[in-house]
Amino acid sequence: MSRLDIIRIDSSGRKNCQDEVSDEIPLTIHLDGKELLTLLCSPDSLKEFSAGFLYSAGIIKSINDIGTITIDSQKWISHVELKNKTDTQKLMFKRMYTSGCGRGVLFYNTLDLLHRRKVNSNLKIHSDKITELMASFQNSSAAFKQTGGVHSCALSDGEDILIFKEDIGRHNALDKAIGAALFKDLDMRKLIILTSGRVSSEIVLKVSKTRSPFLISRSAPTDQAVKLSGDLNLTLVGFVRGERMNVYTGQERIIHE
Amino acid sequence: MSRLDIIRIDSSGRKNCQDEVSDEIPLTIHLDGKELLTLLCSPDSLKEFSAGFLYSAGIIKSINDIGTITIDSQKWISHVELKNKTDTQKLMFKRMYTSGCGRGVLFYNTLDLLHRRKVNSNLKIHSDKITELMASFQNSSAAFKQTGGVHSCALSDGEDILIFKEDIGRHNALDKAIGAALFKDLDMRKLIILTSGRVSSEIVLKVSKTRSPFLISRSAPTDQAVKLSGDLNLTLVGFVRGERMNVYTGQERIIHE
Repeated sequence: MSRLDIIRIDSSGRKNCQDEVSDEIPLTIHLDGKELLTLLCSPDSLKEFSAGFLYSAGIIKSINDIGTITIDSQKWISHVELKNKTDTQKLMFKRMYTSGCGRGVLFYNTLDLLHRRKVNSNLKIHSDKITELMASFQNSSAAFKQTGGVHSCALSDGEDILIFKEDIGRHNALDKAIGAALFKDLDMRKLIILTSGRVSSEIVLKVSKTRSPFLISRSAPTDQAVKLSGDLNLTLVGFVRGERMNVYTGQERIIHE
Repeated sequence: MSRLDIIRIDSSGRKNCQDEVSDEIPLTIHLDGKELLTLLCSPDSLKEFSAGFLYSAGIIKSINDIGTITIDSQKWISHVELKNKTDTQKLMFKRMYTSGCGRGVLFYNTLDLLHRRKVNSNLKIHSDKITELMASFQNSSAAFKQTGGVHSCALSDGEDILIFKEDIGRHNALDKAIGAALFKDLDMRKLIILTSGRVSSEIVLKVSKTRSPFLISRSAPTDQAVKLSGDLNLTLVGFVRGERMNVYTGQERIIHE
């Protein structure tokens, strides 16, 4: 966070004061020595972010695919060396010509989706637990309280919050959480994903890669996010506010009595 | 918007009901017959979105560069024909190798920014007017009230809201508003931009292309957004809530007594 001199205007008048704003940096990922792309993000958890991004993008399948990640925090470069050298040129090509990629998602394609198997999990969670986890999730976000300018994402085992990440972008926060799970060797098929952000089809796509059966959001989903969640047999819960929540898909995993 | 069957859980129990969610479509832009990219967006104002996106991306300089835009709403393709054929291959190349591009912004580069002139405008606005415009802006958002899942962007002449656009993405909403201004031949150097969304450096970059001197947000900016706004002599106001607001840069354009 940075402190800045600002002018605050309210009904009592105009005054000079200081305000906290979120930091934003351009992180360039170099894969096996070649520049892959630049992402604007918050300057923390950059190793996790790099790993999570590469995982979400389908470039790595597990943390074992990564040799080293070195962060140059002068130039904001993440140097990633894979154990088996990848054909960066080919990835670039794919990135360029892939149809169906959105602004937030490069590398994805439709075939990728068709090959995806449905979530096959009999994990369940009580709705009271969702209420409780979301309250704890929101209390964790000190940066949001101070700056109002970040999204957060957490992973929970249904009891506790195991991983909590923040970023100026909701895609980035999810990638950081996924990356942290990779480093900690957590089995995401047993974890619940909590997000502060709106849920688009891109977010669902990213979640489905992790095989996590639960996506719980404080905000709204789009129609395509709901459709895709249904197709993938994912439990999608939105608008969790106090004791209220909307269960869009996969209601059989939610206990309520 | 789509109506969906959902389960709503609250303190009174669990019930089946219907809920409205925002629609999301993948719009593929074809430029002079060649596929440029696919953007996920809300399915309205697609001509404006196409024009605004191409303008923000620096591919067109004015609406006069566009020959025709035809929207295929079966396949969600926007067929754009320019008056002077562009080298799409070259654009692709630029898109691929441009450093400094973030997830939300393709095509931009740093040189582009260095060549940008500072905003040179002596327009002023009273803080009471900002409060008033923001209230009217928020009341305009019927979709947000119903779905909670969209961002909005408006253009105002300081008195009225002239253009109001919504989208599932805050970048898209801005591009739609810019596109609408291009079609209406409005001089954006005299307009105020209002946004519901957080302000990153990418948003400021997009605004600076329009030469509009005012960017007013309900939400928070990042440190880089504030820095860039300062460098560009743009007036950046954030957290406009009721009569309160934070003026980050360009305070000389805000009247308050």
